Amino acid sequence: MRAVVIHAAKDLRIDRIEAGAPGPGQVRVRIEAGGICGSDLHYYHDGRIGAAIVVREPMILGHEVAGRIEALGPGVDSLQIGARVALNPSRPCGRCRYCQAGLQMHCLDMRFYGSAMRFPHVQGAFRDVIVAEAGQCHVVPESLSAGEAAMAEPLAVCLHGARRAGPLLGRRVLVTGSGPIGALCAIAARRAGAALVVATDISDAPRAALERLGADRFINVAKEKGALAEYAKDKGTFDVAFEASGAAAAIVAALDVLKPCAVIVQVGLGGEMPLPMNAIVAKEIEIRGTFRFHEEYGLATELLAKRLVDVRPLITATLPAERAVEAFDLASDRSRSMKVQLSFA
Amino acid sequence: MRAVVIHAAKDLRIDRIEAGAPGPGQVRVRIEAGGICGSDLHYYHDGRIGAAIVVREPMILGHEVAGRIEALGPGVDSLQIGARVALNPSRPCGRCRYCQAGLQMHCLDMRFYGSAMRFPHVQGAFRDVIVAEAGQCHVVPESLSAGEAAMAEPLAVCLHGARRAGPLLGRRVLVTGSGPIGALCAIAARRAGAALVVATDISDAPRAALERLGADRFINVAKEKGALAEYAKDKGTFDVAFEASGAAAAIVAALDVLKPCAVIVQVGLGGEMPLPMNAIVAKEIEIRGTFRFHEEYGLATELLAKRLVDVRPLITATLPAERAVEAFDLASDRSRSMKVQLSFA
Amino acid sequence: MRAVVIHAAKDLRIDRIEAGAPGPGQVRVRIEAGGICGSDLHYYHDGRIGAAIVVREPMILGHEVAGRIEALGPGVDSLQIGARVALNPSRPCGRCRYCQAGLQMHCLDMRFYGSAMRFPHVQGAFRDVIVAEAGQCHVVPESLSAGEAAMAEPLAVCLHGARRAGPLLGRRVLVTGSGPIGALCAIAARRAGAALVVATDISDAPRAALERLGADRFINVAKEKGALAEYAKDKGTFDVAFEASGAAAAIVAALDVLKPCAVIVQVGLGGEMPLPMNAIVAKEIEIRGTFRFHEEYGLATELLAKRLVDVRPLITATLPAERAVEAFDLASDRSRSMKVQLSFA
Amino acid sequence: MRAVVIHAAKDLRIDRIEAGAPGPGQVRVRIEAGGICGSDLHYYHDGRIGAAIVVREPMILGHEVAGRIEALGPGVDSLQIGARVALNPSRPCGRCRYCQAGLQMHCLDMRFYGSAMRFPHVQGAFRDVIVAEAGQCHVVPESLSAGEAAMAEPLAVCLHGARRAGPLLGRRVLVTGSGPIGALCAIAARRAGAALVVATDISDAPRAALERLGADRFINVAKEKGALAEYAKDKGTFDVAFEASGAAAAIVAALDVLKPCAVIVQVGLGGEMPLPMNAIVAKEIEIRGTFRFHEEYGLATELLAKRLVDVRPLITATLPAERAVEAFDLASDRSRSMKVQLSFA
Repeated sequence: MRAVVIHAAKDLRIDRIEAGAPGPGQVRVRIEAGGICGSDLHYYHDGRIGAAIVVREPMILGHEVAGRIEALGPGVDSLQIGARVALNPSRPCGRCRYCQAGLQMHCLDMRFYGSAMRFPHVQGAFRDVIVAEAGQCHVVPESLSAGEAAMAEPLAVCLHGARRAGPLLGRRVLVTGSGPIGALCAIAARRAGAALVVATDISDAPRAALERLGADRFINVAKEKGALAEYAKDKGTFDVAFEASGAAAAIVAALDVLKPCAVIVQVGLGGEMPLPMNAIVAKEIEIRGTFRFHEEYGLATELLAKRLVDVRPLITATLPAERAVEAFDLASDRSRSMKVQLSFA
Repeated sequence: MRAVVIHAAKDLRIDRIEAGAPGPGQVRVRIEAGGICGSDLHYYHDGRIGAAIVVREPMILGHEVAGRIEALGPGVDSLQIGARVALNPSRPCGRCRYCQAGLQMHCLDMRFYGSAMRFPHVQGAFRDVIVAEAGQCHVVPESLSAGEAAMAEPLAVCLHGARRAGPLLGRRVLVTGSGPIGALCAIAARRAGAALVVATDISDAPRAALERLGADRFINVAKEKGALAEYAKDKGTFDVAFEASGAAAAIVAALDVLKPCAVIVQVGLGGEMPLPMNAIVAKEIEIRGTFRFHEEYGLATELLAKRLVDVRPLITATLPAERAVEAFDLASDRSRSMKVQLSFA
Repeated sequence: MRAVVIHAAKDLRIDRIEAGAPGPGQVRVRIEAGGICGSDLHYYHDGRIGAAIVVREPMILGHEVAGRIEALGPGVDSLQIGARVALNPSRPCGRCRYCQAGLQMHCLDMRFYGSAMRFPHVQGAFRDVIVAEAGQCHVVPESLSAGEAAMAEPLAVCLHGARRAGPLLGRRVLVTGSGPIGALCAIAARRAGAALVVATDISDAPRAALERLGADRFINVAKEKGALAEYAKDKGTFDVAFEASGAAAAIVAALDVLKPCAVIVQVGLGGEMPLPMNAIVAKEIEIRGTFRFHEEYGLATELLAKRLVDVRPLITATLPAERAVEAFDLASDRSRSMKVQLSFA
Repeated sequence: MRAVVIHAAKDLRIDRIEAGAPGPGQVRVRIEAGGICGSDLHYYHDGRIGAAIVVREPMILGHEVAGRIEALGPGVDSLQIGARVALNPSRPCGRCRYCQAGLQMHCLDMRFYGSAMRFPHVQGAFRDVIVAEAGQCHVVPESLSAGEAAMAEPLAVCLHGARRAGPLLGRRVLVTGSGPIGALCAIAARRAGAALVVATDISDAPRAALERLGADRFINVAKEKGALAEYAKDKGTFDVAFEASGAAAAIVAALDVLKPCAVIVQVGLGGEMPLPMNAIVAKEIEIRGTFRFHEEYGLATELLAKRLVDVRPLITATLPAERAVEAFDLASDRSRSMKVQLSFA
């Protein structure tokens, strides 16, 4: 059985592993598709994420996956063999004070697929077969491709971000940074009823996808200097910004066009960012971090299944797992790709 | 009639001005007490606040004042001559889109006492007599001293900040920076039902005042290194921080002891602050600016009048208006003073 | 110039009135379409709404209208002659304490078109021509029919109701009572991201419209007894109910299938309703009244203009204004009609 | 060992039971004080609460208790023998979907002391000795009497109710029904920063207690007809009402003096209540049920321990457990008592 394993920075291999049998309450899932995420790319390029999260042993990457149930462990009667499922990579403990408060993304004992945050690392899901808890599996209809089902994970991140923003019905929304996460924030905002969605980037590459996804306008702020100025009138236009670039300059620019009391949902990781706090104070801006998701995973699968959200324009390439290195390089090139997925078959 | 006028940095004078007569809907107030605020000190020391707000013509300072009604203009029947009033320095236009949305602190045409934000500057209230709108006057009982009544303004700032924090009943609250504003945030948090109030500063000077005001604990973080560590367990203790120091280091320290999804209410102005955005994202922290107040001014006078809030421990000196320069110097020395007030008589 | 005037219960006439010229800041609008609302029907059938609101003088009905600008008063430069506009019937005073708090729907001096709530009554907009404030006019594109534009008003009611519900992204929503208002609540909930929308009625008539509008399921609770039972498992399924029937039985039934802490948005007027308060307490249900709208009117026109909301399946008949009596009778027959509109030409 | 056991309506006995030894994670508590609650009185007088909750086997009553740790089970190291503790009677399962969402009061498998809601009934805590989970025990200082500590339970109910009301800082609060629960709502509202607290009842008996507890005003609405009228001006005065009478008339009266968008927190159980829904809709009133508590229990013990809340004026009588019948009769007579407690010794 194959797995896509990071050994060190730039050392990504296809290794052979054992499949394992499902225990009580578990199932074995044959993976069909897996999306490459920004954190996968950090592990691939740097062998780490920031200063604290370092690959210290070989780790299977991947946490955006979908596949088919191929075996049921004892006691599992809520799932059927052959069903296509999106696989929730988040496994909170359920007992700590945050789990008991409905804040499972802050679980004190989280085991999230393909994360080096703890040691031994939690192995990921870029592999032919995985044993998972039945509760991680969300059945989707056959009309939803495995690739789309695998998008449930990044969509869940953005649905959680959208909920962090507060009610969006009728709101005017700015998205800064239009990679896959920014684009999904735009989709989520539209789905939640935003009246205006303007997305920006410093490249033209995402323009077509963003427009197909329903953004009202895409602005390449590197080329269209001053294009945001029209939104600065009377202290600003936007009620909400989703900041997905991780660049302080994006926040600074947003502050001019956000209305007083507007909310910036910070989705992108950007290390230390120098912020003009006086503007934040005087306009009573709110900056809210958003991190992963919990019940939004199931919600994402529902919205995908009902096609209330359509992520197909975002999947720009699908490569066989054997060509993982090529896929990771492609995913790293934002001029050529939005979401790149691996297929396992 | 005297007025305390800033002409340029370090050039504070007692000038003579005309009193004026109240027009329709107006009253004339004989000022009794006026508190010196941080913004007054900025004008005094620097002739400006930050890069944008610059003293370009002589401006009467002062916006924390109380006094007695001494004349009523035509049509004023809600006030009586002789009544002690706290005087709201905030005069929003009432017509712009923010006023119509209940966000008067973001009025597009605000005229706030003693502010160089617009030109001609809006003259302030450190003067023997002022003509004001009847609606600016909040009657307080004789049992409340004029000095206490003048505290309604900074208290209103902190009540607004407390409301920005969301419900505080039973919350654990950290206050960073224990000058007058930090101390009033501590009072406001306690009044709003906080179960734990811990205040910090980099000096020992505020300790006595904070403890008398009801904080559970005061920590001099410059001396008691590591004293906050006990609050870092299990991802943090505090639900809310009021950041009144304007120092990025205070936010960085707070991030360790704030629980996931905690709120930092940024009260202090601090220019550009480098923030560890990854921690803010991963813990889903919210940073909320807070700016001035609106209905909280009346609320402040009520809470003071009923002694549901007692600010007396904060008023550390009262000097005659003639000694304004001495008072401003004293107010600038945080080792010797919390709130310094001028008396007019 | 014609107007549709109620003189007393069952006494609806086409009267001749003067058109008038627009004053400063005003425009004259030639009405194209006007929808008949439940309150219009109450005036028509009963000459009153409840005990307190009684027709005491002839009153032009109608508050759901759209038309074209045909003349501009002095100083109006934001509108152009010939533009199609949706006309906001709500005219709050802008000065009272509720207007200054952003709660214009509770204005102490509201003048809402076609309402007998005050005397003299506020005349309505079922007429060939009306003089209105420029600010009441919301320009819509030619691609939007006048009939659709006239739907901005009931849509605004339901968008306001949807906002009263809190965030709806991913929520499970029940709509009880599937007349035009219930149907628009279903649309608003879907637009705001509801994951499940189930609508009920005691008649089969609305089924087709509701299904075309995107509800997941329509249940005729009069025929399909017990159909809601599947939603009662584990204390309930729905996070939100929009109660648009005005029948206590609908609330009682909803209580079984609402989750603890769920919200019932009460849109329908129903007089005195006996409620099982113990269930409301034990499940911590919230019942929230919703009344009219303010900024949601502009929002409604935007969502309609962008076809983010499509109300066409709801307009079941359009009759010339001359046949107003026939139109009112048709609108009163829920087995034959959802929204009935008058055309003026 | 004694226990106060309800056998049927009016059949309350002092029975002998076994004490039991604490298992792993458990402690044995010697009860010192237990308060009689309204639900205890329902069991005593009617043998039931409403139609559904019926005493079907002998059941020890009592869920408002405090005592001293007298033995520790294996593995308990967070508690010490001899410590005075308030004992949380709420035991949610921790695993169901509501527990995992932080809504433990809606646990699908709740075992709450002294409740006949499930069968076999959950035995209560009016007994000399009880074995409890260590996590149920909240240590209080010796300066807090056992009687006060026992008040943590009803206080927790009202703190939860206060949280259900939303932020109370500066709000104007009406309390209808001034028995122990209404009085504790008044205390909680004041603690949470309410600017005005007006309490009503249909008897004069609670007047002294309410005034000592810090209510601004007590109104006997049975005698002082029209006393509320002054609060009806301009659509109302109060932002929040705590309805603790269970009488529909109290809600009807409150609707006149509540501002638009005000919140009624329904604490009292009152069976079917006929409500004027048109007024609730037109004023956009919110009615929110409130039920029990979760983390507010610990919060109640903290506020009591710090004397941020003082409940002593509410404890109007303490009788030895042997005189339980007399105590229950006394507690049933609202003209003579607020909270009646049993002492065990």
